[in-house]
Amino acid sequence: MPRLRVHNFTLSLDGYGAGPDQSVEEPLGAGGEQLHDWLFRTRGGKEMLGEPGGSTGVDNDYFRAGETDIGATIMGRNMFGPVRGSWNGSQWRGWWGDNPPFHHPVFVLTHHPQPPIEMEGGTVFHFVDGGIEAALEQAFSAAGGLDVRLGGGASTVRQYLRAGLVDELHLAVVPVLLGGGERLFDQLGGAIEGYGIVRFTGSDSVLHAQLARKPQQ
Amino acid sequence: MPRLRVHNFTLSLDGYGAGPDQSVEEPLGAGGEQLHDWLFRTRGGKEMLGEPGGSTGVDNDYFRAGETDIGATIMGRNMFGPVRGSWNGSQWRGWWGDNPPFHHPVFVLTHHPQPPIEMEGGTVFHFVDGGIEAALEQAFSAAGGLDVRLGGGASTVRQYLRAGLVDELHLAVVPVLLGGGERLFDQLGGAIEGYGIVRFTGSDSVLHAQLARKPQQ
Repeated sequence: MPRLRVHNFTLSLDGYGAGPDQSVEEPLGAGGEQLHDWLFRTRGGKEMLGEPGGSTGVDNDYFRAGETDIGATIMGRNMFGPVRGSWNGSQWRGWWGDNPPFHHPVFVLTHHPQPPIEMEGGTVFHFVDGGIEAALEQAFSAAGGLDVRLGGGASTVRQYLRAGLVDELHLAVVPVLLGGGERLFDQLGGAIEGYGIVRFTGSDSVLHAQLARKPQQ
Repeated sequence: MPRLRVHNFTLSLDGYGAGPDQSVEEPLGAGGEQLHDWLFRTRGGKEMLGEPGGSTGVDNDYFRAGETDIGATIMGRNMFGPVRGSWNGSQWRGWWGDNPPFHHPVFVLTHHPQPPIEMEGGTVFHFVDGGIEAALEQAFSAAGGLDVRLGGGASTVRQYLRAGLVDELHLAVVPVLLGGGERLFDQLGGAIEGYGIVRFTGSDSVLHAQLARKPQQ
């Protein structure tokens, strides 16, 4: 059965998925950009940027896993862009240029629907205002039997965790201290009791932890 | 110059140093005991319990580091015992039996002073009601040129961090999800900006991160 998977969700050592004071200039908040440095040191990450080289090994394996057997992506509106409220004719087409690295349908959660935006390379941004379950249903349908990847940000992942809809969650903890910002592990109620840690692999630069939903009793 | 050091302070993957609902029966809260399983798997941890065997390697090295060149310990009252408020003639002498594993003076932060308690093996519990700086001064004085170890719990460590008095902080992150409880990285204000991560070493069971105070500008 197709699954909803989170990959490469990166936390600072003090538990933040984004730093304080998120803004257009710093969409991941103060200091938040450094969370993802590890991704751009991997071979897969460099390929995504059209650059040569990069590390192979466990970090790269995790990067690649996030690209494998995924037929659609869901993300929160703040991950799509900095525009808030009504789109008001905004020409915003995402952070990723004309040919975004998805190459499949992407469902953006929003309270303000607008027509889909078709990009180069197979990525189409759809704007869904029916809630997280409706978005998931549309994404599974669009994925054609493949899995769906859940992007961020933290609040979007928390919503799906609280609803018990995430099947797998790969976390990367990096040696960064942000001192504040947006937590992933917050306001989850009892949802976390439904998950177990099935892999825990450290390197000198990243701790990888793989969470999976426990089998239903 | 003697330093104030925190060792083996263990956090769940979701960031808690103790689970929810701390009580006399579960002083580390629901599920909190499992945080420290890794310590009791090391050779040093087993020696402390008078048991043979145990792992050598990085986890054991970190355990041993916490025993090295320490002349006194500071801990919060909740780490010393479950008695709250006035001692009222309580015969409580700590969680550790007649011969506690400190073998040096231990300064317990409290609002309710009582006479020192002398244990076997060199441990003497002193009860300090003059605040964290007074306790630190007494501990440095008692340590006779060695370092002072800061135990827990989380709120005690946070107080010393906020005051900028911690020199080194070794954290262990373990593959446990507690879902709630007491955080270490909370309400620290800007204090964390004074610290950097100087070591980050993962194994399959523990991520070790060593924080150190940045040199004064």
